[in-house]
Amino acid sequence: MPKYPNVSASVTRRLPRYYRFLNALEKQGVERISSKEFALIIGLTASQIRQDLNCFGGFGQQGYGYKVTLLRREIGRILALDNKIPAILLGAGNLGLAIAKHMDFEKDGFRLIGIFDKNPALTGKKIRDWHIRSTDELESFCAKYGPKIAALCIPAESATEIADDLVKWGITGFWNFSQCDLSFCEKDKVFVESVHLGDSLMTLRYYVDQLETEE
Amino acid sequence: MPKYPNVSASVTRRLPRYYRFLNALEKQGVERISSKEFALIIGLTASQIRQDLNCFGGFGQQGYGYKVTLLRREIGRILALDNKIPAILLGAGNLGLAIAKHMDFEKDGFRLIGIFDKNPALTGKKIRDWHIRSTDELESFCAKYGPKIAALCIPAESATEIADDLVKWGITGFWNFSQCDLSFCEKDKVFVESVHLGDSLMTLRYYVDQLETEE
Repeated sequence: MPKYPNVSASVTRRLPRYYRFLNALEKQGVERISSKEFALIIGLTASQIRQDLNCFGGFGQQGYGYKVTLLRREIGRILALDNKIPAILLGAGNLGLAIAKHMDFEKDGFRLIGIFDKNPALTGKKIRDWHIRSTDELESFCAKYGPKIAALCIPAESATEIADDLVKWGITGFWNFSQCDLSFCEKDKVFVESVHLGDSLMTLRYYVDQLETEE
Repeated sequence: MPKYPNVSASVTRRLPRYYRFLNALEKQGVERISSKEFALIIGLTASQIRQDLNCFGGFGQQGYGYKVTLLRREIGRILALDNKIPAILLGAGNLGLAIAKHMDFEKDGFRLIGIFDKNPALTGKKIRDWHIRSTDELESFCAKYGPKIAALCIPAESATEIADDLVKWGITGFWNFSQCDLSFCEKDKVFVESVHLGDSLMTLRYYVDQLETEE
């Protein structure tokens, strides 16, 4: 059984946002906050916040509000951020390298243990702490080090090609930047988090067009 | 008035996905497709697809299905992809450069006309067709070339600092990679499309943890 089987995706997807804001508040030295104040900062209603947090057990006290550090820690625990699982990154092109350099995987619950590319010209090059490895090594690497997560910064066709193998080799979660929608058999128990940058850009184009025609 | 004032965000956010799949089908030479077949490919129900497209006028024919090229073009028109508006990118760090190099802005309805960074060491360097400019030039550049969109690949504090100025200088849409939530007065008529990579990574961590505790 998952720990929170009945919590909806829309609630779950707000947790990182709560965590991010609580982190900032903690850094500013704020010790406690009412759901009303928190709502103002985060752009939700107080009752929405209370409802969301109640899905996981509450954490607030009537008339007192939330202890910032405590709530930040609790949400971090729900998100499993302290339990760092091994991850690999496929594709050392522009985007892959930027993700490897820019993202703080450790902060978000991961330990990046390998970067792979099929281009022999890139193999051996060093990116921060990692030497780029050849995708030929993937299977043996997975057998030896057991990564659970694969960030896919490779073209759609390559992603579709390799995804099933990765699942066979033990990957249970994908951070998918390839412009494709991966799907797996339910029995495989795999979660795919896709970041469709192109879709995001088109959405922006649409809404700016709607603003323009608003006059 | 916006062209489609009553269409919900969840419907709108599916349009880029439709567009992406229709593009792929067109490239494969598929000329027409039933809503049933399209639903299978895209992972929605046929009635959902019909409902979504009906918000914009339909485009299908009972018993015939959709003409792929026609529907792709219509959705492209709704998304305003053919009407390319000028965009700038702020922040020529790892992520900014990857976005500039990796994304095909033209395909998604934009024309990238300038890249800016406050680091003098980067000023003048060439990225594809663009020389990195100093942020000191931003105001005069905006006055001269009238960019409408700003992609923000800068730290949260810098983004919060500069956002209001950018709106004053004519920016109406933000593609926001800074780890902050920008907000504006309603009268400003600005749309913000945020890509919170950290939130996405935390969401992945959560769901993989839920899978692990499912046994």
